[in-house]
Amino acid sequence: MRVSVSKSRPYVPPSFPPSELTLTSLGGVRAAGVRAGIKPSGNPDVGLLVFDQSTPLVGVFTQNKLPAAPVGLSREHLARSGGRVRAIVVNSGNANACTGARGDADARAMCARVAAALGCAIEEVLVCSTGVIGVNLPMDRVAAGIDQALTELSPEPAAGRAFLAAIQTTDAFPKEASTRDAGGMFAGVCKGAGMIQPDMATMLAFVGTDLVVSAEELREAMPRMAAASFNAVHVDTHASTNDTFLLFATGRAERTGDFRPPLSRVCRRLAWLIARDGEGATKVTTIDVRGAASDEAAHAIASHVAASALVRTALFGNDPNWGRFVSQVGNAREVRSIEGLRCTLQGISVFENGGPMPFDRGALSHAMNVEDVHLVLELRDGQGRASVMTSDLGYRYVEVNAEYTT
Amino acid sequence: MRVSVSKSRPYVPPSFPPSELTLTSLGGVRAAGVRAGIKPSGNPDVGLLVFDQSTPLVGVFTQNKLPAAPVGLSREHLARSGGRVRAIVVNSGNANACTGARGDADARAMCARVAAALGCAIEEVLVCSTGVIGVNLPMDRVAAGIDQALTELSPEPAAGRAFLAAIQTTDAFPKEASTRDAGGMFAGVCKGAGMIQPDMATMLAFVGTDLVVSAEELREAMPRMAAASFNAVHVDTHASTNDTFLLFATGRAERTGDFRPPLSRVCRRLAWLIARDGEGATKVTTIDVRGAASDEAAHAIASHVAASALVRTALFGNDPNWGRFVSQVGNAREVRSIEGLRCTLQGISVFENGGPMPFDRGALSHAMNVEDVHLVLELRDGQGRASVMTSDLGYRYVEVNAEYTT
Repeated sequence: MRVSVSKSRPYVPPSFPPSELTLTSLGGVRAAGVRAGIKPSGNPDVGLLVFDQSTPLVGVFTQNKLPAAPVGLSREHLARSGGRVRAIVVNSGNANACTGARGDADARAMCARVAAALGCAIEEVLVCSTGVIGVNLPMDRVAAGIDQALTELSPEPAAGRAFLAAIQTTDAFPKEASTRDAGGMFAGVCKGAGMIQPDMATMLAFVGTDLVVSAEELREAMPRMAAASFNAVHVDTHASTNDTFLLFATGRAERTGDFRPPLSRVCRRLAWLIARDGEGATKVTTIDVRGAASDEAAHAIASHVAASALVRTALFGNDPNWGRFVSQVGNAREVRSIEGLRCTLQGISVFENGGPMPFDRGALSHAMNVEDVHLVLELRDGQGRASVMTSDLGYRYVEVNAEYTT
Repeated sequence: MRVSVSKSRPYVPPSFPPSELTLTSLGGVRAAGVRAGIKPSGNPDVGLLVFDQSTPLVGVFTQNKLPAAPVGLSREHLARSGGRVRAIVVNSGNANACTGARGDADARAMCARVAAALGCAIEEVLVCSTGVIGVNLPMDRVAAGIDQALTELSPEPAAGRAFLAAIQTTDAFPKEASTRDAGGMFAGVCKGAGMIQPDMATMLAFVGTDLVVSAEELREAMPRMAAASFNAVHVDTHASTNDTFLLFATGRAERTGDFRPPLSRVCRRLAWLIARDGEGATKVTTIDVRGAASDEAAHAIASHVAASALVRTALFGNDPNWGRFVSQVGNAREVRSIEGLRCTLQGISVFENGGPMPFDRGALSHAMNVEDVHLVLELRDGQGRASVMTSDLGYRYVEVNAEYTT
């Protein structure tokens, strides 16, 4: 069977219905998103989230050794405030990365402006930036944008969505998720589609609940939340200078159950949406590794498979090319023994005990031509397991990443 | 300036003049390449190299934990013979990988057939395979091809080139290199263009000299030869199940100097040709990392940059997008301090001391539109240095890897 993959196939971004809840649904949260003129397109580019009172919040940030100025400052503020936050100011269109001492001063000025307006300590304000790197912020526009956002703050859902619109860069669609569980509400928004033109983009995620959860509990839950969601997404295996994931609890509702499973579902859905947007992706493939020596080994092996350009082009082409999947497992350092490796694609076993299994290639290719593909790789090294999500790699990835106006 | 990168730009494989010398030039080497019918295309697919006498030879093989049957057997034969070899038999069109016990028996039968004809011990014969994986060899055709190759063995250059033709799979052009130095001749051939359809391809390289060099000396030189050449090439960061690099010395000429520099030049040129062929590549980018904590750290950092799809699409688009290069350095675990990082592209410094340098983007983009691009990344962690080569990633990469007939 010939799998038709035409270069001229037009890219149609997917669309998803809005989620029931957004950040302003969580109680005590006001939001705004305005057009400050940072982006040449004129699209919204300054967003503001304000909590009515100081709110427990934890963050994880990029591990890149060249963190942007706002990342360094937000880390510092969280440490100084002990994880209690009044506001988050975000600009898109400019990452304020690789911008030297002036970049540091600009990030600080953004926080100071918000703190002065709210009458809070500067360390209770966090800042995030995303967009072009190596260019200083147009601070006159940023300041005017912040002032305007302060006047437009609102607890309405529309304001939450205006905030979401203002944090986007090259996203093909808005990304939000929510659920109700454990006696409370859970909502999150994010932006990110890989690292793309004009220079590189960023993953920013803001997730909250209205439950009473202490900063300590959030801090304890955060590593697993991040590992299972945003740290389990591969678009191009290139962490940006600005990646930020903030998690907060407004404390309006009493818990009737464990807050972690619903929070995890929201984070995982947001991460899926990033993979789905992944620079012209046509599908999200979830790669489950089981039976590794440890969960860490499983994560490393799954990531190794997810990062392979050969694997990702095969997924784009709906090609059940198990040789690429199993040989990449063989390349992962964390594999102890490859004996007994089993590879299952869309529920069909294609490789077992060192040899290929008979299967209908045309039917399996057809089964891969969907938005959600599932690849399971089972080892016999131990009990370790992990699940990562990867976007496929097609013509549009090359188009958005190579066709650049210098 | 708009960099024009059209999807419809036709792929024109490069061509290179034949090298002065080939393997049969080295004295005491006969070769053959025949059409055995393993490839559906009918192209040559069984090659044979025979040494007039037992010859010192060392090999490095894939580190993939799923090595193909011929890899395991050649390793075993080299260990048993102490690195003395009479013949190398190669088939293309079928990798004999993931083929179970029958695959092992088939590889052994190939060696046994050659050994019987030459009257040597089976462990003096090595075997390599490349092509489709997970399919057993058509042994009747392979055996007939070996018999025919045995009758066609010749010391003429044309026979050396017939051998080269028989080891190719998806290569867009033949790959050979040679030089004269240190009183002797050096020649090599290889195949490889990344891991591509129908399942995956392989890197095979055969390099020799006519100088007197002991197996011990070859063994000592091999790690650095491999590290600076075939282990410094990135096409898609996916080591195959069959990769093999064999190095021999026919001992016909007395050394008048160090054999290693000319041997290294030949290996490096062959590796460059593989990167140049890299699945529709338009250029080879040499990434030099200097000032790393160690040579190993430098190699890891350079490889991390070379493997980035974002870096490789920028190179395809002639895009002097330094943000992608320096941020990927920031992602490398082996970097101790990023302070003072300098990034030089085609001789132009674009990033120094944590900040961008002014440069003419249009002129630099134009300067990148050549076959050889040079990216230098300088750290201040120590004296470690390394140089790797990477192919760019364009539309044709997606085309050859996604458009697959199942």
